[in-house]
Amino acid sequence: MITTDILIIGAGPTGLFTVFEAGLLKLKCHLIDALPQPGGQCSELYPKKPIYDIPGFPEILAGDLTSNLLEQGRQFQPGFTLGERAETIETLEDGSFIVTTNKGTKHHAPIIAIAGGLGSFEPRKPQLENIDKYQDKGLAYFIKDPEVYRDKKVVIAGGGDSALDWSIFLADVASEVTLVHRRNEFRGALDSVERVQELKLLNKINIITPAEITGLYGEDKIEGVAVTKNGDTKVLEADAFIPLFGLSPKLGPIGDWGLEIEKNAIKVNTLDYQTNIPGIYAIGDVNTYEGKLKLILCGFHEATLMCQSAYKRLNPGNKFVLKYTTVSGVNGFDGSRKESPKAVVKAIV
Amino acid sequence: MITTDILIIGAGPTGLFTVFEAGLLKLKCHLIDALPQPGGQCSELYPKKPIYDIPGFPEILAGDLTSNLLEQGRQFQPGFTLGERAETIETLEDGSFIVTTNKGTKHHAPIIAIAGGLGSFEPRKPQLENIDKYQDKGLAYFIKDPEVYRDKKVVIAGGGDSALDWSIFLADVASEVTLVHRRNEFRGALDSVERVQELKLLNKINIITPAEITGLYGEDKIEGVAVTKNGDTKVLEADAFIPLFGLSPKLGPIGDWGLEIEKNAIKVNTLDYQTNIPGIYAIGDVNTYEGKLKLILCGFHEATLMCQSAYKRLNPGNKFVLKYTTVSGVNGFDGSRKESPKAVVKAIV
Repeated sequence: MITTDILIIGAGPTGLFTVFEAGLLKLKCHLIDALPQPGGQCSELYPKKPIYDIPGFPEILAGDLTSNLLEQGRQFQPGFTLGERAETIETLEDGSFIVTTNKGTKHHAPIIAIAGGLGSFEPRKPQLENIDKYQDKGLAYFIKDPEVYRDKKVVIAGGGDSALDWSIFLADVASEVTLVHRRNEFRGALDSVERVQELKLLNKINIITPAEITGLYGEDKIEGVAVTKNGDTKVLEADAFIPLFGLSPKLGPIGDWGLEIEKNAIKVNTLDYQTNIPGIYAIGDVNTYEGKLKLILCGFHEATLMCQSAYKRLNPGNKFVLKYTTVSGVNGFDGSRKESPKAVVKAIV
Repeated sequence: MITTDILIIGAGPTGLFTVFEAGLLKLKCHLIDALPQPGGQCSELYPKKPIYDIPGFPEILAGDLTSNLLEQGRQFQPGFTLGERAETIETLEDGSFIVTTNKGTKHHAPIIAIAGGLGSFEPRKPQLENIDKYQDKGLAYFIKDPEVYRDKKVVIAGGGDSALDWSIFLADVASEVTLVHRRNEFRGALDSVERVQELKLLNKINIITPAEITGLYGEDKIEGVAVTKNGDTKVLEADAFIPLFGLSPKLGPIGDWGLEIEKNAIKVNTLDYQTNIPGIYAIGDVNTYEGKLKLILCGFHEATLMCQSAYKRLNPGNKFVLKYTTVSGVNGFDGSRKESPKAVVKAIV
């Protein structure tokens, strides 16, 4: 059982900044995310795209924002359960919660902060008979560890940036990469499209278009993939099939936790962004209230007020006085200390 | 008469970020600030001190945050009335406002955003007879343009960073710099104290401690300054007297505008941070509401929601749909355009 003060569901920018604000209040955080890496949409959907409306950054790449937020919270030593989706919640007699993921990992905390963005990103799955049988047996919708594909025969399906970028990456890892797309035209960053074109001419990537995957074969794991082009079907020998048809966010199992839901978002008050269940907060794009704007900078504010409320909930006797980091510095849980250079008091003679 | 869409009172971080958010909605801003430069407290009180709790910046100097925010809003061409304090407000029949500064500059706008921080920074004034008579006639509490002191005899009073730093700077500009402090010990950054010590030994700065300024002399402008040390008073010949005893924020004339005030702050609702007077908003440290935290990051959120509300107020017919800068880019009022590199759609052959 993992135990923490604040269990954060969702490791996007709002969840990551919560770690920092909680840390200032000496509260420890653990984050669960269905994606294999922190950063949420910023890392998964548009790591190399610029954001222009983060205050203080005339321009920042979404991936760099993620790195900065990880760095900002690092001293508070957050824990992570990645690649698992928060599935069920149980309320204990003392009002604390146990959250269990789809892989059975249990987390215990007195405070839950749902920072789930638009929901957990569920891959769009191709409609193929028996497809679920091959899950983690050659079939993957995310690539967590590319080394799994070392010297394997890999079939990737899709026509966007993920399909292009992973085809490029795996061309140097796998023994054979085949990219199948239902149109002749790919849609992605110019340099990715050009690089795939080069690798095709070098015979390092096979491209089959316009074509679709129409079947999966194999006893206990994928051994072959059927590709249909212009009505003709042939089966390619393959160890792995990676459909990259995009992700669609789904509120998912959290929708069944008894929280008040409105327009696919969790209703909160604007005092501390608490939900209808005491001790469960919702912050960032996942919440809704009158006047809500789904902007990263709003998630930062919500996370900050939410941490103050959580602190009061956990320390009902204490009166916490807001301290300014410039004045008080920052004490990391790892023993580190950041502080502004001190003034000296000195006579001039 | 200066006219604009949103008249922002206070050019600290919250006011500066308002320019950007308003610009995304095609609203033009003009800022008034009592200080001679933008940045508010960040520029005036602690430009070289680090802030650790701006989201996405593990550490940023307050002065750099100001520069970044100016840069982020630059394309929206804000106007500035600096070194003047917003003094009176008049509501016209159509609900728009005219704000006049202490120097008589008039500004007309349908929306007012008070982003006045802890108030306008009023210098602490020494108790000297007739001191107000010398205002701008050799007496200054801020240094706007150091060139004014070229080849002049300058007396600075004070024992903190401002007194030290300006003594250092003016040592190369003025013909004579005398620094007077009521204690022997100065309090400031180590390198500033050391540099003043060096300049004293080089006879480039005269230091008189422990001593106080006890009189100002001159017909139409300052010609002499009386310094009392251990009960003995002597008059120094001087062209300028600059007391740097710190600033204390005062809500000031805004307190008389008919706004609901609570604990020296302006009461607002949490829907759009509007005050009790329709069309006047208060954002950042100057406002108060249940759960308010006086943090820069909260001011950013408040500014953003406030701009949405102002847009709706000014365009009652339009339904504005929130656009993401990563998707839509940013169109500057100066004709500039920032945008994410476009995806290409291209066949691979």
